[in-house]
Amino acid sequence: MWRSVIGSAKALSNCSCQNHWNVLLLRPLASSPSRFLSSTSVLESPPPPPSSMPPVSLDNINPKVLKCEYAVRGEIVTLAQALQEELKSKPGSHPFDEILYCNIGNPQSLGQQPITFFREVLALCDHPSILDRSETQGLFSADAIERAWQILDQIPGRATGAYSHSQGIKGLRDTIAAGIEARDGFPADPNDIFLTDGASPAVHMMMQLLMRSEKDGILCPIPQYPLYSASIALHGGALVPYYLDEATGWGLEVSELKKQLADAKSKGITPRALVVINPGNPTGQVLAEDNQRGIVEFCKQEGLVLLADEVYQENVYVPEKEFHSFKKVARSMGYGEKDISLVSFQSVSKGYYGECGKRGGYMGGTGVGPGIREQIYKVASVNLCSNISGQILASLVMSPPKVGDESYESYSAEKDGILSSLARRAKTLEVAFNNLEGVTCNKAEGAMYLFPCIRLPEKAIKTAEAAKTAPDNFYCRRLLNATGIVFVPGSGFGQLPGTWHFRCTILPQEDKIPAVVSRLTEFHKSFMDEFRD
Amino acid sequence: MWRSVIGSAKALSNCSCQNHWNVLLLRPLASSPSRFLSSTSVLESPPPPPSSMPPVSLDNINPKVLKCEYAVRGEIVTLAQALQEELKSKPGSHPFDEILYCNIGNPQSLGQQPITFFREVLALCDHPSILDRSETQGLFSADAIERAWQILDQIPGRATGAYSHSQGIKGLRDTIAAGIEARDGFPADPNDIFLTDGASPAVHMMMQLLMRSEKDGILCPIPQYPLYSASIALHGGALVPYYLDEATGWGLEVSELKKQLADAKSKGITPRALVVINPGNPTGQVLAEDNQRGIVEFCKQEGLVLLADEVYQENVYVPEKEFHSFKKVARSMGYGEKDISLVSFQSVSKGYYGECGKRGGYMGGTGVGPGIREQIYKVASVNLCSNISGQILASLVMSPPKVGDESYESYSAEKDGILSSLARRAKTLEVAFNNLEGVTCNKAEGAMYLFPCIRLPEKAIKTAEAAKTAPDNFYCRRLLNATGIVFVPGSGFGQLPGTWHFRCTILPQEDKIPAVVSRLTEFHKSFMDEFRD
Repeated sequence: MWRSVIGSAKALSNCSCQNHWNVLLLRPLASSPSRFLSSTSVLESPPPPPSSMPPVSLDNINPKVLKCEYAVRGEIVTLAQALQEELKSKPGSHPFDEILYCNIGNPQSLGQQPITFFREVLALCDHPSILDRSETQGLFSADAIERAWQILDQIPGRATGAYSHSQGIKGLRDTIAAGIEARDGFPADPNDIFLTDGASPAVHMMMQLLMRSEKDGILCPIPQYPLYSASIALHGGALVPYYLDEATGWGLEVSELKKQLADAKSKGITPRALVVINPGNPTGQVLAEDNQRGIVEFCKQEGLVLLADEVYQENVYVPEKEFHSFKKVARSMGYGEKDISLVSFQSVSKGYYGECGKRGGYMGGTGVGPGIREQIYKVASVNLCSNISGQILASLVMSPPKVGDESYESYSAEKDGILSSLARRAKTLEVAFNNLEGVTCNKAEGAMYLFPCIRLPEKAIKTAEAAKTAPDNFYCRRLLNATGIVFVPGSGFGQLPGTWHFRCTILPQEDKIPAVVSRLTEFHKSFMDEFRD
Repeated sequence: MWRSVIGSAKALSNCSCQNHWNVLLLRPLASSPSRFLSSTSVLESPPPPPSSMPPVSLDNINPKVLKCEYAVRGEIVTLAQALQEELKSKPGSHPFDEILYCNIGNPQSLGQQPITFFREVLALCDHPSILDRSETQGLFSADAIERAWQILDQIPGRATGAYSHSQGIKGLRDTIAAGIEARDGFPADPNDIFLTDGASPAVHMMMQLLMRSEKDGILCPIPQYPLYSASIALHGGALVPYYLDEATGWGLEVSELKKQLADAKSKGITPRALVVINPGNPTGQVLAEDNQRGIVEFCKQEGLVLLADEVYQENVYVPEKEFHSFKKVARSMGYGEKDISLVSFQSVSKGYYGECGKRGGYMGGTGVGPGIREQIYKVASVNLCSNISGQILASLVMSPPKVGDESYESYSAEKDGILSSLARRAKTLEVAFNNLEGVTCNKAEGAMYLFPCIRLPEKAIKTAEAAKTAPDNFYCRRLLNATGIVFVPGSGFGQLPGTWHFRCTILPQEDKIPAVVSRLTEFHKSFMDEFRD
């Protein structure tokens, strides 16, 4: 048994740190070469472990692992899981009868149904020997059967159980490249695409490639999706924060990028890349094309790789905004291969499909230097390949049924139903948050989250401090214990010092939204009554 | 486009290094703290990149990535893929009409058929809405339908498209734990199991956890599966080699472990763990239980984590040997949780199922120190979870159909057919290798490989050296160009200096084996005729 200390101070105090990104940024700056040396010296002559001590302990593991944090599945979620178990073993033991998980972009866990066509194709590729059976015609749509044949013909030996090329099956990459071309109106090369188990491993690969030491920095938005801070911590680099402007709907100002870049350089950090999440996570903004041009120009001028997290490209809810890929923007500015280094991340977990459990995704890179693709290929090949169902699904989301296909109407109805419902839920929750005392909430133009700002009373802040936890964590824990609603405290994403937020997904099914709103509203009122200054 | 230099000296010279593991071991020893410091200083004031230089180049990426090598998909395989393309575009352009991939344990790529029951269950879980349809009864076996229902009931909301618990779906871990208990006769705890996308990410997680710097060492067999050397390089630790004894059928001697451990310690390396691959890859030996006891005792005495690669546990071909898990061996010695730290790796890619493309697997850890599971959980949670189809398959291989189930007979026939054929192929190839001039080959008692030793003539070695490549690489490249057969040179796995080997899988379908043998035999004779001393 892994000897467990669930609930120990060490394990659960991770999220009470207010400013992880500052910790990440400042640690390398504070550690002088001589300090690094002395820690190496310590490692040179370790004391022999006493026989009762296990070979692995919190005192002797990789400090980068200890430093890494991931609040989306952090303390609050662990507590929620424990409460859920208690509700099961002792019904009525809490003032609510179910946990409402609003912590993570995991739509199908909350009842969203998969797109039928996609699942038909996956099932047929999993068990191709039924493709020729007559019963199959009655069970599956004709275009799903046809698509399954097409895909199988793209796989050497039709072997869906074989390791593929380490970049992913070539025919599927062809399909994805065609989808990117259709989306952007510019050529896309299948050899630039690496299929991955969701977007996360792709982000890790790029971080691992780019960062040589704690002196190499990655510019990241604050608030950010904590995959980035976690990956930077695990790979031993420096997170260089740039702040999104809440007052202008989480605006991304190039002047802020320039300021933070200069600041990092003055501290001896070599900036290697800029992360942009568009549509934003946790902030929900959709960048205007003009803004994107400024960002592209900045990366070009500063010699930064632009790491574009575009996993929410299908999740745009407002008519005045539209998703534009950074590649399209760069090409429309006349910048080609040699002008700008750009890597885009996409995932099957988001969009209207929300197929999180399938772990499909890809990264597409353009304008990266000579030999770099071979290095990424090598690292990818150590893990052999990403899962084939995920690869197939990544090709399907980039080439869904078209007008005239048998499945087109039902596919469109499913897609539109999900997206329009998400838009309604985003609006309802935004209004509800703005109706709470001391809470302001920007619109979710896209993605799957709202990130409201809460002005906590001084008394609540002091009570949280006395309990050795961050005030936003304190609020979220109280909310969970009172209502069963799971939010993630803003401190897990980063926020301007002295401000407090939380992230709430827009994913509970529509029939649950009134319950979320009323429970939250009631809780918030009693919280404020208890702590109001 | 990732600017490509396929075929450049830099990209293709990776495998010509004879002793990667020595490079890995010796580099940290050679780099004094002051040398490390000076390289840090270089990073502090990098020259600004000229505007024509891309932000990422081979000169400025993470040197750990550059150092990492993975021969199983290295130079020879890249060449084979190029030849395959040429055969397609210009039939008749080479003295063979197909590439025979013997480089990688990828059975289904060579025509092995998946186990029907497993695929039925996967397809039904991918598209559960057909479970209630009458046509489904005609297409799928009754026990597959029943099993799919059971599995769906173990998944919260029956949502196979949702992220699961970061360790994997609890019900599937229960099934796996029960399978381990049935196999070993000792209790297994589902909370000790982490489901992963194949075994590789699990190995990476442990390496990342254990290694703090290049002064932390991992004892690895030589020859080894290059995942280990690659992972150690990527995570910046030291590979401490121990040599398997070819003369005794790749015997693993505890005296050799002790000698190498003392040697590493004398060089300032802190050994953290011992990797044992059983059955062996690339060497095919199956450890005797008595030998395993000695290894367990050694790890206990030396405070090492035992990392047991047990992915070939179902692949044993000789009646005199049997697989015993290291956990079973430790428990049968009376060692419990507090006595020994042990992590076992298992995969759905191997065994008789060979479902490489599904990327399923798990690691089970026992006796690891307080709070460590929480650290691993945290790192796993950054990637959210492994793919659900792979998770389901991992549970299926640990709980296949039983006597009395509708599928039992066909399942057994498929399984026995594959395993007995593998045993025949292993024997045929072993005999064929031993019939070649200057070649000796140990028996493949298990796993999927033979690793014959070839005494190359001096003239061949000199010719290889003149061509700036390792002699075994030279042989394998010649073989590929003449016959289309793809072996991996022994230098990718490690071998005693001055000896030469290659790894050959036993996976070509039986009807192809005569062609492999005759082409190889003919090539080898002409090679020896050309170079014989």
